[in-house]
Amino acid sequence: MKDYKRFSIELAKEAGKIIKANFALGMKKEWKSDNTPLTETDTKINQLVLDAIQKNFPGHSVLAEEGSNLLEGSEYTWVCDPVDGTIPFSHGIPNCVFALALVKNGESILGIVYDPFLDHLFLAEKNKGATLNNEKIRVSTSASFESTIIGIALRKNEKYNFFQVAEILESRKGWSLNFGSIVYMDMLVANGEFAASIFGGENAHDSAASKIIVEEAGGTFTDIFGNDQRYDQKVKGHIASNGILHQEIIDIIKTSL
Amino acid sequence: MKDYKRFSIELAKEAGKIIKANFALGMKKEWKSDNTPLTETDTKINQLVLDAIQKNFPGHSVLAEEGSNLLEGSEYTWVCDPVDGTIPFSHGIPNCVFALALVKNGESILGIVYDPFLDHLFLAEKNKGATLNNEKIRVSTSASFESTIIGIALRKNEKYNFFQVAEILESRKGWSLNFGSIVYMDMLVANGEFAASIFGGENAHDSAASKIIVEEAGGTFTDIFGNDQRYDQKVKGHIASNGILHQEIIDIIKTSL
Repeated sequence: MKDYKRFSIELAKEAGKIIKANFALGMKKEWKSDNTPLTETDTKINQLVLDAIQKNFPGHSVLAEEGSNLLEGSEYTWVCDPVDGTIPFSHGIPNCVFALALVKNGESILGIVYDPFLDHLFLAEKNKGATLNNEKIRVSTSASFESTIIGIALRKNEKYNFFQVAEILESRKGWSLNFGSIVYMDMLVANGEFAASIFGGENAHDSAASKIIVEEAGGTFTDIFGNDQRYDQKVKGHIASNGILHQEIIDIIKTSL
Repeated sequence: MKDYKRFSIELAKEAGKIIKANFALGMKKEWKSDNTPLTETDTKINQLVLDAIQKNFPGHSVLAEEGSNLLEGSEYTWVCDPVDGTIPFSHGIPNCVFALALVKNGESILGIVYDPFLDHLFLAEKNKGATLNNEKIRVSTSASFESTIIGIALRKNEKYNFFQVAEILESRKGWSLNFGSIVYMDMLVANGEFAASIFGGENAHDSAASKIIVEEAGGTFTDIFGNDQRYDQKVKGHIASNGILHQEIIDIIKTSL
């Protein structure tokens, strides 16, 4: 496990260097078929991760946003988002992170998130707590939405309407913000600045690292209906919270359609 | 005018130093009666601005978020938000700016916005164009919402429902984001990264500097109903856009209730 940890930290720092070096206004980007942008930076870091894992842990699978290496019968899967928050990144806004999780039989056992702009390294291992730059972090103690911040990746589909969720939260005196990087917002839940964050996306790479970091920081992390799920396959979004407000958020989402 | 410009730049850089020096996680904040936070940094910069204007331009009024100095019969009013984006700032998120405008008989004639984290200084003078760190900037050329970003300060009241506006924009394939600092998002309109930004707040300090910077960058800037307004008294929010999409946004806001 120590090897996994050291390996992850090195990889995150290397990825962070690439993110920072390529950060600019007026960046070149392609818009993918799912209406999200792609930059050379995403592709480059994705390749770095694939190569590093193949070299160091050749028996492990990799599930990553811009290209995977799935091995049959592999117990371990590294789940990676090379740049979570490509929208802000590609528009010259420094709210984006590198996110990596080691998932064993569907369960996140190691999570690492790196924000190269603030030099913030978030790390958690199963049953060992969560840290930000080696200092223990802890979710908030907010018991109501008043004067709290909730990060919401605003989307609507046949299962939920997060625009309406945001409206309900405002009526309860909470603030919803949307930075365009769900993992960035999840880390604000883990360190106690936000009370919760809500995300509807189905790719595990947006959820796997946050899952263990938020839980090890004392929070609760489920799919958007309140259930546990595997993090090495498609997911049903996620709610990250301080635990106290979790059920209330599930109830609001249920009434949002 | 040259004196005003030099004075503004020095003040913005000084304010930026204070913002950066006081930036941290776990920041102490009070929540004001309007459910927005206040930090010592807001108060300190506000006082710096009041003192500097009284010393250099004793006949000018100051209209600022945390304390004003309104002189009867004064033709000139300096309109200032010491920290636009106190919510992100006070939660350890580096998306906040210092904003200052010189308003003559209700019209913004000089605007300056400083982001100390990226060292981005936005400046515009009437009829002289807008710059970011001395380079000319220009709004985007997007003619539809597809694959564009719109910054929206999500609020709802009896006149508008921006949650619904965001939902309509998503149905037209646009992305809405909400960084918690409207001036920060207005500057992304001015430099062409965002297609538009929408704000409902009634205080001139959230609008006066952006008004001239966005217009001098080639964009359009009105209240949320599409009308011009004075920027040294209460305002009816604002829409900042690349001009091309302005009318469509007004129409969407009108249908949002």
